[in-house]
Amino acid sequence: MTAQPAKKLLVLPGDGIGPEVMREVTRIITWLEEKRGLSFDITEDLVGGASLAEYGEPIRDEVIEKARAADAVLFGSVGDPRWNHVGFDKRPELAILKLRQELALFANLRPAKVFDALVDASTLKPDVVRGLDIMIVRETVGGIYFGNPRGIETLPDGSKRGINTEVYTTSEIERVARVAFDLARKRSGRVCSVEKCNVMESGLLWKEVVTDLHAREYKDVELSHMLADNCAMQLVRNPRQFDVIVTGNLFGDILSDLASMLTGSLGMLPSATLGAADSHGKLPALYEPIHGSAPDIAGQGIANPIAQILSFAMLLRYSFNMQDEGQLIEDAVSNVLESGLRTADIMSDGKTRVSTSVMGDAILGELDK
Amino acid sequence: MTAQPAKKLLVLPGDGIGPEVMREVTRIITWLEEKRGLSFDITEDLVGGASLAEYGEPIRDEVIEKARAADAVLFGSVGDPRWNHVGFDKRPELAILKLRQELALFANLRPAKVFDALVDASTLKPDVVRGLDIMIVRETVGGIYFGNPRGIETLPDGSKRGINTEVYTTSEIERVARVAFDLARKRSGRVCSVEKCNVMESGLLWKEVVTDLHAREYKDVELSHMLADNCAMQLVRNPRQFDVIVTGNLFGDILSDLASMLTGSLGMLPSATLGAADSHGKLPALYEPIHGSAPDIAGQGIANPIAQILSFAMLLRYSFNMQDEGQLIEDAVSNVLESGLRTADIMSDGKTRVSTSVMGDAILGELDK
Ligand SMILES: CC(C)[C@H](C(=O)O)[C@@H](O)C(=O)O
Ligand SMILES: CC(C)[C@H](C(=O)O)[C@@H](O)C(=O)O
Repeated sequence: MTAQPAKKLLVLPGDGIGPEVMREVTRIITWLEEKRGLSFDITEDLVGGASLAEYGEPIRDEVIEKARAADAVLFGSVGDPRWNHVGFDKRPELAILKLRQELALFANLRPAKVFDALVDASTLKPDVVRGLDIMIVRETVGGIYFGNPRGIETLPDGSKRGINTEVYTTSEIERVARVAFDLARKRSGRVCSVEKCNVMESGLLWKEVVTDLHAREYKDVELSHMLADNCAMQLVRNPRQFDVIVTGNLFGDILSDLASMLTGSLGMLPSATLGAADSHGKLPALYEPIHGSAPDIAGQGIANPIAQILSFAMLLRYSFNMQDEGQLIEDAVSNVLESGLRTADIMSDGKTRVSTSVMGDAILGELDK
Repeated sequence: MTAQPAKKLLVLPGDGIGPEVMREVTRIITWLEEKRGLSFDITEDLVGGASLAEYGEPIRDEVIEKARAADAVLFGSVGDPRWNHVGFDKRPELAILKLRQELALFANLRPAKVFDALVDASTLKPDVVRGLDIMIVRETVGGIYFGNPRGIETLPDGSKRGINTEVYTTSEIERVARVAFDLARKRSGRVCSVEKCNVMESGLLWKEVVTDLHAREYKDVELSHMLADNCAMQLVRNPRQFDVIVTGNLFGDILSDLASMLTGSLGMLPSATLGAADSHGKLPALYEPIHGSAPDIAGQGIANPIAQILSFAMLLRYSFNMQDEGQLIEDAVSNVLESGLRTADIMSDGKTRVSTSVMGDAILGELDK
């Protein structure tokens, strides 16, 4: 029993497979409360298409406030093709975009790691990906996602013009580069900064700011620079050349998805999106799986719950400083994989195919050992 | 002998390995003139770092005018790290950007094709890439590469702000989509249009315009839509699902490089960038290998000349309507690969490693047969 007040956790399952995989996390939370004497102050709410259906908006201000008040947010996934034609201000995706921006969650940490037991799940040759362990640090509250002017205007002849603006300032670049350098110090000590400085001035500024910060404060870290198109190629050619990659919002979106697909097991990969600690040391933080809402398999009970479970383990470690419990969960997941159980997405010859809930059962069973 | 005037060809070798691989093309041109009675009106000039060194600018107006006057441009590659720190208006890359824009070369056709003899050169499993044949149609004169406002400004506190603007209009999207649909009709009849419509209004307009054009004129072609991040993943997961991909300038830059790296033989892939035919039926066109200037191996005589040679074959077919000669060259390349010769980039066990010029000799030898 701990004397600290129960940690406040906001749970936002979202759309598609979100609720299914989140259910397995709540079973683990119950286990932690019953068997480890922990207690969490949990609130759950709707976001994305689920919130649009109920409240007519992808996320309510009330939910943003709950997120601000929480010690951490555990997010599922948003996106639902049924809302494809409803207009730009009614996209389910606005839920995650607003959370990132309102809470100033500027650094998205996306690991691309190959689990030894799953090396064959990759479409890449085992020799190319065995032992792969990249961390992509993606800026998430700036760039072309949020810059103004933006919109679609009608021209005099009736045709249209779509506009978006990429903006990055010195301070926006510096704070996310700092996260990357700090992480590299705890890893293999190498950062690769990625932009298109040969075409975009915002990329040129990106490169300059990262170079300056490195010279001033991080000379012990090895820094390299790469163009985004080359980075996409190098991730396919020889992904193990990378340790930490730091890049802007749009390139990060594409390159981190690419990197995670190299592992062949998207259903395994968690992520964290972090803000800046306030004067009381409180760090705004949101954890979510890398995979999306996967509407094509939603409701069938076959989704892989592991990315969501590992996102929760990451939350326990980073936000609640519960290292032991994080480790327990990560070990349980490893052991279940070693024992040969697989959900459909990571299935291979000779393994046992199981449903979402049987995978959850097995992980709980391991925790009980 | 033909009664037509000799076709005007502008040859721009550029930087790095550009001149080395272009040399092998000029030997083939000589062969065509001597052995097939063809005659070409050839001009050669400097671009990129080579032009910066000689004239202080990456491309002279005079060269743009020569390109405009030519029946086709054969381009090598530009980019030279020695010019990295010289300022945004002195980048070697401006040579290709200006050529694209001044000649309104709006559609870049980039095939990603796996040669049977080279299936093992890919880092992907043979089963995933065998028979791969994708055509990426990338818009090349619009989007964030050319939009205004752009630049780096200094803020009152001395920090900086980098800005770029993504702009697409209905007509810019329509003309490149038309190229993609027309190509699909000659291939497997499928187009996948790629954007980030869940985040960018310019992407939303892109999707709408492609959808409308399809409904009006191309119902016989199968059209699908994909987000750019998902497309990067799908290219790794199952690249053979694609036939023609059409996308904007920036996404096209990244995704086409990614797609070509899937083949494992970047040194093999040609590309064409086309404009709109004028009232005399003259089509502005530039041909270049997909690979860049590869400064790390320049001057060693080990670069693969095949992408440059196949770019020339593509030029003969598309711009000069010399189908037989195009075919001759393509067959010669195939036969040389079948015979087991390989440059370093596509080397594998049991094959014979050869230099740039020996590869050129072998292709000429095949032509002579
Ligand atoms: C849902 C979508 C808006 C989002 C993004 O593009 O950032 C997603 O792709 C991600 O990477 O988290
Ligand atoms: C050289 C560079 C400006 C260019 C681009 O980004 O378009 C290159 O990467 C390409 O794809 O042709």
